[in-house]
Amino acid sequence: MMGRLTFVGLGLGARGISLEGVVAVKEADSCYLEYYTTPHEPTLLKELENETGRVMTVVDREFVEDGREILKEARGSRVVLAVPGDPMIATTHNELRVRAIGQKTETAVIHAATIPSSAASASGLHYYKFGRMMTITRETLDSMQQAYHTLQTNLLQGLHTLLLLEFDVEGGEGAAPPAVIGGLLRAEKNFGREVLTEETFALVLSRLGRQDSELRAGYLKDLRNSEYGEKPHCIVIPGGLHFTEVEAVAAIFGLGEGEVRDNSRNMKGTAEVLIPRYAAKTRRALNSARERLGRDYDTLLENVELYTKDAEGFLARGEHELAMLSMGYAEGLLDSAGFTGRAKIDW
Amino acid sequence: MMGRLTFVGLGLGARGISLEGVVAVKEADSCYLEYYTTPHEPTLLKELENETGRVMTVVDREFVEDGREILKEARGSRVVLAVPGDPMIATTHNELRVRAIGQKTETAVIHAATIPSSAASASGLHYYKFGRMMTITRETLDSMQQAYHTLQTNLLQGLHTLLLLEFDVEGGEGAAPPAVIGGLLRAEKNFGREVLTEETFALVLSRLGRQDSELRAGYLKDLRNSEYGEKPHCIVIPGGLHFTEVEAVAAIFGLGEGEVRDNSRNMKGTAEVLIPRYAAKTRRALNSARERLGRDYDTLLENVELYTKDAEGFLARGEHELAMLSMGYAEGLLDSAGFTGRAKIDW
Repeated sequence: MMGRLTFVGLGLGARGISLEGVVAVKEADSCYLEYYTTPHEPTLLKELENETGRVMTVVDREFVEDGREILKEARGSRVVLAVPGDPMIATTHNELRVRAIGQKTETAVIHAATIPSSAASASGLHYYKFGRMMTITRETLDSMQQAYHTLQTNLLQGLHTLLLLEFDVEGGEGAAPPAVIGGLLRAEKNFGREVLTEETFALVLSRLGRQDSELRAGYLKDLRNSEYGEKPHCIVIPGGLHFTEVEAVAAIFGLGEGEVRDNSRNMKGTAEVLIPRYAAKTRRALNSARERLGRDYDTLLENVELYTKDAEGFLARGEHELAMLSMGYAEGLLDSAGFTGRAKIDW
Repeated sequence: MMGRLTFVGLGLGARGISLEGVVAVKEADSCYLEYYTTPHEPTLLKELENETGRVMTVVDREFVEDGREILKEARGSRVVLAVPGDPMIATTHNELRVRAIGQKTETAVIHAATIPSSAASASGLHYYKFGRMMTITRETLDSMQQAYHTLQTNLLQGLHTLLLLEFDVEGGEGAAPPAVIGGLLRAEKNFGREVLTEETFALVLSRLGRQDSELRAGYLKDLRNSEYGEKPHCIVIPGGLHFTEVEAVAAIFGLGEGEVRDNSRNMKGTAEVLIPRYAAKTRRALNSARERLGRDYDTLLENVELYTKDAEGFLARGEHELAMLSMGYAEGLLDSAGFTGRAKIDW
């Protein structure tokens, strides 16, 4: 008999498995359940066994990472590995699948709900406006820096950010929302790029898809001092908001529409901040320089004016890097008179 | 009796509903099924009715958009609206939920597998490396431009891009992979930003999660001339690849590892292309200018050197806009000698 390894997603909550998944479990010769890496509803195992009439062999992460026993068995029989959420989100399960394919064992994947997509859809925000997400295992300096950077990149594009607060298997601890929020605010203090403030609007989704799920929305200053109970948690920091998103978030989280804030509104990229400021300064300096410089500077000054205009044009077309190049060039041209002692340039 | 409106996700395929969803359908006073906007497996309705023992009332999009009947009913009884995939991904269902909350009807959401997350996890790529996704309803000039732009933004950050090929309800037509691939290649011809070529590596996932699903991988020149059968389809254009992603994609799609290409490898942002080139040119021009300019230019020339170095430093730290500003400034300073007739600058 040809063997087969089927990865069955258990979705969210204790009854998240699909009917297709139930059939796969029933038809399997042996069934493994790996849920050490994923916080799950306490009744999961019992519900699963009741519904399928099968006994699940609960295995730990090492067993799956090692994989030799499962792979050996799957050479000649139908093996199911059941995993909370969608089974192929984790690298470990992907690697096991690659090894199974490598030994010519047929594989199959039965998808299920997973936190990243469910968090997006549960939030009332538009799914296609989410940027890159980030997983935070512990509130380390490095992971906070990365989250801060991801947030900046997304907010600059008006995109929403999902932060998945993960569960550290060895330490037995998950990253709790207050610690992560505190870490983000400290990152702001260190980097000072005006990515977030205590007034930044955010959503905290706890135990999504479970009976005891809790959804909270508010400003970071308030959210950092709350209790959120059992893991898992995730945090969504919205970017630009369409009015239907404001309505949906307000309704779902029980807020007034005025309380739902657009965190991208005041976010500006370097060029957007600097070009208007520099262009104005350059024009003022140009005017005062004109009076002091002779005719041999006419062409140069004309070019200062032209390149300043170019910078504004590039900015308007979203070509921020070329805008900065033009702006710098105009400033350099004008400043040359100062460096060569021809005229003091008043910036 | 207090009413309730429950949105039940049907996941992928005909048996994608979760056990939780089955319970909700069984307990409801009335059950609606809306699947006009989403291509679904033909046996879906039959399987659903068999499994739940309930008759589903199949409704069209207008019925859901209008919503008055459902909302009225949900005021005093338990109503289920079943939707393929995850129920809250579509704006229509979100809006209905907001209206239900507005009339003080309790709402609940039962999540399920959805194409965006399943496509990411089925592809063998790391989920957290996906950037913003895009939905393409028809291969219009505008949507192709937007997809091209999204692709560029993602690839520059090394991120993967998911293009969801949607289904146009009124026209009864979906965007087919060959047309979309052709449209992207034409966008490249128009914009010329070297975002993609005929050699760009891509994945096409058709009817994901269904019995008749088909996964294909290859280069755009080959993929554009293939047949993909029934909708739905989606396209994944990978960005930077970790070696475990190369292994997984090769195994899942039956390719040699050498055939799996990193589309981000040669992607460079404007500053990354221009700064090294401009810095070299400026240093050459600086050397030749030194011989021709007098001592009054010493400070200026020293600053040209310093700002060129600054530009390289900013680039190395990822501050592309400041790098361009410095580079432009250095060039402007040096070029001033040409504009004022002091010395011809040989660039």
